[in-house]
Amino acid sequence: MRAGTLLYAQSGGVTAVINATAGAVIRAARTNNIPVLAARNGILGVLREELLDTSALSNAQVRALAHTPGGAFGTCRVKLKSLEQDRAKYERLIEVMRAHGVRWFLYNGGNDSADTALKLSQLAEVHDYPLTCIGVPKTVDNDLVVTDCCPGFGSAAKYTAVSVAEAALDVAAMAETSTKVFVYETMGRHAGWLSAAAGLAGKTADEAPHLILFPEIPFDEAGFLEQVRTTVARVGYCVVAVSEGLRRDDGKFVAESEGSVDAFGHSQLGGVGPLIAAMVKDRLGLKVHWTVPDYLQRSARHLASETDLAHAQAVGKAAVEYALRGMNGMMPVIRRLSDRPYRWKVVPAMLAEIANHEKKMPAEFIRADGYGITEACRRYLQPLIRGEAPVPYQRDGLPRHLRQALPQIEQCLPPWPG
Amino acid sequence: MRAGTLLYAQSGGVTAVINATAGAVIRAARTNNIPVLAARNGILGVLREELLDTSALSNAQVRALAHTPGGAFGTCRVKLKSLEQDRAKYERLIEVMRAHGVRWFLYNGGNDSADTALKLSQLAEVHDYPLTCIGVPKTVDNDLVVTDCCPGFGSAAKYTAVSVAEAALDVAAMAETSTKVFVYETMGRHAGWLSAAAGLAGKTADEAPHLILFPEIPFDEAGFLEQVRTTVARVGYCVVAVSEGLRRDDGKFVAESEGSVDAFGHSQLGGVGPLIAAMVKDRLGLKVHWTVPDYLQRSARHLASETDLAHAQAVGKAAVEYALRGMNGMMPVIRRLSDRPYRWKVVPAMLAEIANHEKKMPAEFIRADGYGITEACRRYLQPLIRGEAPVPYQRDGLPRHLRQALPQIEQCLPPWPG
Repeated sequence: MRAGTLLYAQSGGVTAVINATAGAVIRAARTNNIPVLAARNGILGVLREELLDTSALSNAQVRALAHTPGGAFGTCRVKLKSLEQDRAKYERLIEVMRAHGVRWFLYNGGNDSADTALKLSQLAEVHDYPLTCIGVPKTVDNDLVVTDCCPGFGSAAKYTAVSVAEAALDVAAMAETSTKVFVYETMGRHAGWLSAAAGLAGKTADEAPHLILFPEIPFDEAGFLEQVRTTVARVGYCVVAVSEGLRRDDGKFVAESEGSVDAFGHSQLGGVGPLIAAMVKDRLGLKVHWTVPDYLQRSARHLASETDLAHAQAVGKAAVEYALRGMNGMMPVIRRLSDRPYRWKVVPAMLAEIANHEKKMPAEFIRADGYGITEACRRYLQPLIRGEAPVPYQRDGLPRHLRQALPQIEQCLPPWPG
Repeated sequence: MRAGTLLYAQSGGVTAVINATAGAVIRAARTNNIPVLAARNGILGVLREELLDTSALSNAQVRALAHTPGGAFGTCRVKLKSLEQDRAKYERLIEVMRAHGVRWFLYNGGNDSADTALKLSQLAEVHDYPLTCIGVPKTVDNDLVVTDCCPGFGSAAKYTAVSVAEAALDVAAMAETSTKVFVYETMGRHAGWLSAAAGLAGKTADEAPHLILFPEIPFDEAGFLEQVRTTVARVGYCVVAVSEGLRRDDGKFVAESEGSVDAFGHSQLGGVGPLIAAMVKDRLGLKVHWTVPDYLQRSARHLASETDLAHAQAVGKAAVEYALRGMNGMMPVIRRLSDRPYRWKVVPAMLAEIANHEKKMPAEFIRADGYGITEACRRYLQPLIRGEAPVPYQRDGLPRHLRQALPQIEQCLPPWPG
């Protein structure tokens, strides 16, 4: 047994398969006889010295992580600033890790966490503390650079494509005397990957979704309404997928530029979906329905993609291997070898190349008219939603989830004041 | 082969399993060598003499109806009025059926369709036209009387319970630094059955959903906000399930009594979910997210309940048997024989007892404080979401749906002017 402990923490928004990554990390560490601590609520748990002992999990429970959505140990939305601005926090992190013999730190998150892991790896060197920091990718937004795709995205993409396909059959059946336009709002504040995934639901121009509104394309209200009008005239109904991040010409979010307070002075928390729906109703006089799946799209483990699950587990396993090899400041990422048949492998990438960058949809993935995806985009997205990853169900009809509170390691440092 | 044709029509909102009923009808009729016509877009298709020939479907395609959501032949929201007010329409229906040798009419819908089928059965007798009218139950709202439950409800209920359980894990993982309150809006304009189904997601007081807002209980804003506050203090977060039909003391829908026009003069199509969310944010200052699944909850065939699918197929099969036995004005309904183990059978009920009634949640199903379900309710609901009914997936990761346009029978009557 090597001397040292591995610390794993989750960061930012969860996905349907981030716990599958956690399970793969624990399994790989166990194979190497390395004890694994998990930080409660991400980096906050490290600052507070709230470290959970994963050895309390049986092997069966570790396997159950693979079909449990959410973040099993808690996560947080906390972004550390520069080493200068947040030096006390970085030093506390090192102090906590030193106190618990942590030699390997795995941070499972997006851009921000890659940045934190990178800074921590640098500071550890300065302090001559032997720590290997590895970033582990995760985000439903699919907006990390370097990696071909992000674990978590494929399942959210599959949820989106399947939900749009199913709801479109509903709308098609009722359109003559009921809803003519259905608006589906996807996540993706800065990049249109999830709205693009809706495009997988249909293959021909007359199949839903008929229109996609990407954050990458400034919203043209008149042009959009004309598209809706002609689609309804041609097909009988129109299904629209819209990204929450849709912006106007001036760069403002459409969801923000509309009235934010209702007649009674309440905040309007309506996303862009209901706003687009209201626009269609008011300007075209068509009956409209809308959906905002919100968290459902990133927690629907019951509808996860097999490809995505495999990615999530592969990066977890590779992260442990990189850590043990001392590949400080690296992240295992997905490299695509071919589209058809879909082949991929995990390769190391430098956190410095990934941190603080954002991958938007490339122009060649968006149809010339701006309202749909291209064949190149379809070729990219298609393998990511492929395959099913069924969950075990209980006799009561609900999925079986791991719900195990872990014991916290005894604290030995003064409490963190933050 | 008996002389005569069976006509099947779908009515009102679709469900995840209404096509499974259609498939069972066609299979049972084929067994009896009875040809089946399907009306395009429900009763409208009968008025217009738009009748589809289901003999074009192979047996495999008929089986595929069981895993295809939406309404395969189209449906409509058209309610016929009294025999006096709409006599011309009723007589046209008889005329079309007579022209095509229809001896058996199966109308698959809710309250309104039961009423239409009943009136038609009466008029046929008056006209001395040998027609047997059978109602076939279907509604995600579960609000038909006499029957223990309605085909379509169990699957929507399962979708709701599973989605709430999955999203709750998301919220729990992030609550410390992100969303504290999550609001889930269910369908059910007049009865709280689907909001009650959310209650199956958790078993203890600290498990989500922590609060349910039923249309049967007038909304008490101050009391509700206090419940949210204490739940967040105790659990760390709060998941609220709210029925779209939530009403204030004066009987008005909460969704309607709030501002219906935004600052820019657009209609606010926000449902009650975003309104409740805004209330929590404004009054309690808590970060909140909300979801409105809308049509997803009634078209998610990928997450259907095995019990519900069995109900849907059983009423389809029984409807054909009742029709052939000449049980005019009847509907096959579900009778529950025992809760544990769950046993049920299909029995005939009179349309006259079902038409135009509505089944609300009984008082003993709602917890004394008005914010949750009782053990009796759980015992009732539990079997309805039990069992899975997996769908076949294509290689592209999407469910395989039947998408087959049927040939229309040649018309022989003057066009319907309506």
